[in-house]
Amino acid sequence: MTTAGNVIKCKAVVAWEPQQPVVIEEIEVDPPQANEVRIKIVSTSLCHSDLYCLSKVVDKEFFPVVLGHEAAGIVESVGPGVTEFQPGDKVIPLYLPQCGECRFCKSPKTNQCSCFPSILFRTRLGSKEMALAKSRFTCNGQKLRQFMGISTFSEYTVTHQMAVAKIDSDAPLDKVCLLGCGVCTGYGAAVNTAKVEPGSTCAVFGLGAVGLAAVMGCEAAGAKRIIVVDINPDKFEKAKEFGATDFVNPNDHNKPISQVLMEMTGGGVDYSLECVGDVECMRSALESCVKGWGVSVIVGLTDMQDVATRPLQLTSGRTWTGCLFGGFKGKDAVPKMVKDYLEKKLKLDEFISHTMTMDEINDAIDLMKQGKCIRTVMSVCPE
Amino acid sequence: MTTAGNVIKCKAVVAWEPQQPVVIEEIEVDPPQANEVRIKIVSTSLCHSDLYCLSKVVDKEFFPVVLGHEAAGIVESVGPGVTEFQPGDKVIPLYLPQCGECRFCKSPKTNQCSCFPSILFRTRLGSKEMALAKSRFTCNGQKLRQFMGISTFSEYTVTHQMAVAKIDSDAPLDKVCLLGCGVCTGYGAAVNTAKVEPGSTCAVFGLGAVGLAAVMGCEAAGAKRIIVVDINPDKFEKAKEFGATDFVNPNDHNKPISQVLMEMTGGGVDYSLECVGDVECMRSALESCVKGWGVSVIVGLTDMQDVATRPLQLTSGRTWTGCLFGGFKGKDAVPKMVKDYLEKKLKLDEFISHTMTMDEINDAIDLMKQGKCIRTVMSVCPE
Ligand SMILES: NC(=O)c1ccc[n+]([C@@H]2O[C@H](COP(=O)([O-])OP(=O)(O)OC[C@H]3O[C@@H](n4cnc5c(N)ncnc54)[C@H](O)[C@@H]3O)[C@@H](O)[C@H]2O)c1
Ligand SMILES: NC(=O)c1ccc[n+]([C@@H]2O[C@H](COP(=O)([O-])OP(=O)(O)OC[C@H]3O[C@@H](n4cnc5c(N)ncnc54)[C@H](O)[C@@H]3O)[C@@H](O)[C@H]2O)c1
Ligand SMILES: [Zn+2]
Ligand SMILES: [Zn+2]
Ligand SMILES: [Zn+2]
Ligand SMILES: [Zn+2]
Repeated sequence: MTTAGNVIKCKAVVAWEPQQPVVIEEIEVDPPQANEVRIKIVSTSLCHSDLYCLSKVVDKEFFPVVLGHEAAGIVESVGPGVTEFQPGDKVIPLYLPQCGECRFCKSPKTNQCSCFPSILFRTRLGSKEMALAKSRFTCNGQKLRQFMGISTFSEYTVTHQMAVAKIDSDAPLDKVCLLGCGVCTGYGAAVNTAKVEPGSTCAVFGLGAVGLAAVMGCEAAGAKRIIVVDINPDKFEKAKEFGATDFVNPNDHNKPISQVLMEMTGGGVDYSLECVGDVECMRSALESCVKGWGVSVIVGLTDMQDVATRPLQLTSGRTWTGCLFGGFKGKDAVPKMVKDYLEKKLKLDEFISHTMTMDEINDAIDLMKQGKCIRTVMSVCPE
Repeated sequence: MTTAGNVIKCKAVVAWEPQQPVVIEEIEVDPPQANEVRIKIVSTSLCHSDLYCLSKVVDKEFFPVVLGHEAAGIVESVGPGVTEFQPGDKVIPLYLPQCGECRFCKSPKTNQCSCFPSILFRTRLGSKEMALAKSRFTCNGQKLRQFMGISTFSEYTVTHQMAVAKIDSDAPLDKVCLLGCGVCTGYGAAVNTAKVEPGSTCAVFGLGAVGLAAVMGCEAAGAKRIIVVDINPDKFEKAKEFGATDFVNPNDHNKPISQVLMEMTGGGVDYSLECVGDVECMRSALESCVKGWGVSVIVGLTDMQDVATRPLQLTSGRTWTGCLFGGFKGKDAVPKMVKDYLEKKLKLDEFISHTMTMDEINDAIDLMKQGKCIRTVMSVCPE
């Protein structure tokens, strides 16, 4: 590999400013430093969290940035100290790293490694200097932020080895890229965080890839009834393929959706999963749960507003929690999820509504904004 | 017993109006109907929830009412169909009944029997007619509400057999009355709901009897550090007796108390228990928890305002929940708690700061309003 050790000039998608179309630029990608891995991205898909950052994070400090965090690729080269990876390995970059050393990694209760740059989701941003010091991207002499430590809307990216999962060499990268975020997120929220039990009744709010994966997780866990809620009824047919049994469009009702679900279930659902990212939906999802043992998991992301409820909703025995990346420890779980897909135990193809090239990213963004896609997979570099 | 089958004239404490002193009146107590038990109350104590109803429930529909829900007494007579109790049995009335038949009673996950009149805590009150139809109390020809289905500020009360726990005949009623609410509530919130683990760090907000019992529960569960938070530093000495290790008075700090606790613990506590009944304390208690696995239990009661947080507090892996009566199924657990007290495995005497007679109830109310008591036990009838 003649690129190893050298700066790579390649194409990447740069978000220069909030709420503006993103731009394909030529950028320079530094060689990996100690404990870092440089990855050739083969396929990447667009997740709503990219859209959230582009359209809701108005703080200019966050820009320019290269977005993208759901992808699969091939190791191009490794920095000093990296023994776990070799050039040619198929990998999935992890926005939620697994250092293996911190008390969070060591606890079986959580996947929230203390190295996670959670700060990136906040409008109260961390030090820009620190973020840029860790970035290996430059465009016309200007450093670019690396989104969530990875940035997959680029032909090449560099990240710490704790943020990379090695996967089966047979894995089709244009499918398993979905395991980089959305599918693990929704599926894990049901099986790891909600811990859905056989025979239970579940509700899933929001039927993007995250919500559909949550439906798939509820079904895998043996739920007997899966009620899905979306304001876009076009999503219901797909949800049925994943195991949904009941369909609720809030626009068809003139009472609170929690009341509709309470009535449908004679007292509320056992588990609810919010996969929208809206504080009113989060409240509805909690208040749709049965008293005594109902568990509501917040999966959707937003950090602009408070989420609220009446205290009695909780003292009457409901539980409110949430997770990132479905509670999966990435290095441990992603290779297994890939294997499950290869063994046909897990659906992935069904999430892919559109395929295009990375050059067409603004079209992918428009499709998601309009609610017209599930996942758009973009080819970046050829394998 | 010559009283059996007859109406009993006796003394009771009547709350005629919100926010007014309560009045000792002569009331008439009907004989127990089918499946009901009439109880001679020997000792009762005042809990903050009585005070909450008196001072915060401004809906006049709720009045007149006989308050009181933390007591112990002796069965005077039983109605048709009652086989579990006999006159002379020592009992503790249960505001949270255990019918044993409903899906909540049958589930090991909750104590929230579907027969629980949760409606009584709401400003949106249930039908007054229904509540009065179930009341066995009359004063000067006017029916009085029975608070939480029991009303223990009365020499005699009548309640359904599903709302009575039979206890050891050796139990000192002037002590075990505390197991009718506060001590079970706080203790159970720690051991049943939070499920505090050995070696963990806990925070308890509010050091009334409920909070002190939560401290006792944390200690019994093996917590290594128990940080207590109260705006009344007079409570700290008592908390130490129960096992508290660190003392925080919010008035000593000019930053949010969650930040103080984050700093004291290097990232937050494993468990927090809110035993105040204030929505800002509830938020602080949640936000004092460590990301990834922190669990915050709301024990304090209020239904006037929403409680809020940032969604990211939950997506970063905290869990928010709550309980009534410490998650204990009353009929099963209260007799065991009494036994634990008799075997000196559980403290009760230490919660009693004052003793008086029921006639002095307004003094007991004043003491609690001023934060000058832990529990005031009032003698009602002689054993
Ligand atoms: N916790 C995590 O680790 C994590 C990871 C990935 C994505 N997310 C978040 O999950 C959410 C979903 O992501 P996605 O990629 O599936 O998004 P998406 O845009 O593909 O899907 C969102 C769905 O929600 C529906 N919706 C919008 N408003 C609604 C309402 N009021 N009621 C019901 N449904 C409504 C939309 O019609 C759409 O079908 C986003 O908030 C995203 O940021 C979280
Ligand atoms: N969930 C249940 O089943 C249940 C049962 C009983 C009582 N409760 C509730 O538990 C709460 C406590 O009851 P109690 O009888 O122990 O009350 P209490 O009045 O004896 O004690 C309350 C304590 O909170 C402290 N406090 C007040 N404001 C505070 C603040 N901002 N920060 C820190 N501490 C503060 C007071 O100084 C006092 O020590 C009440 O809300 C009561 O209604 C709930
Ligand atoms: Zn994502
Ligand atoms: Zn770690
Ligand atoms: Zn009480
Ligand atoms: Zn029941």
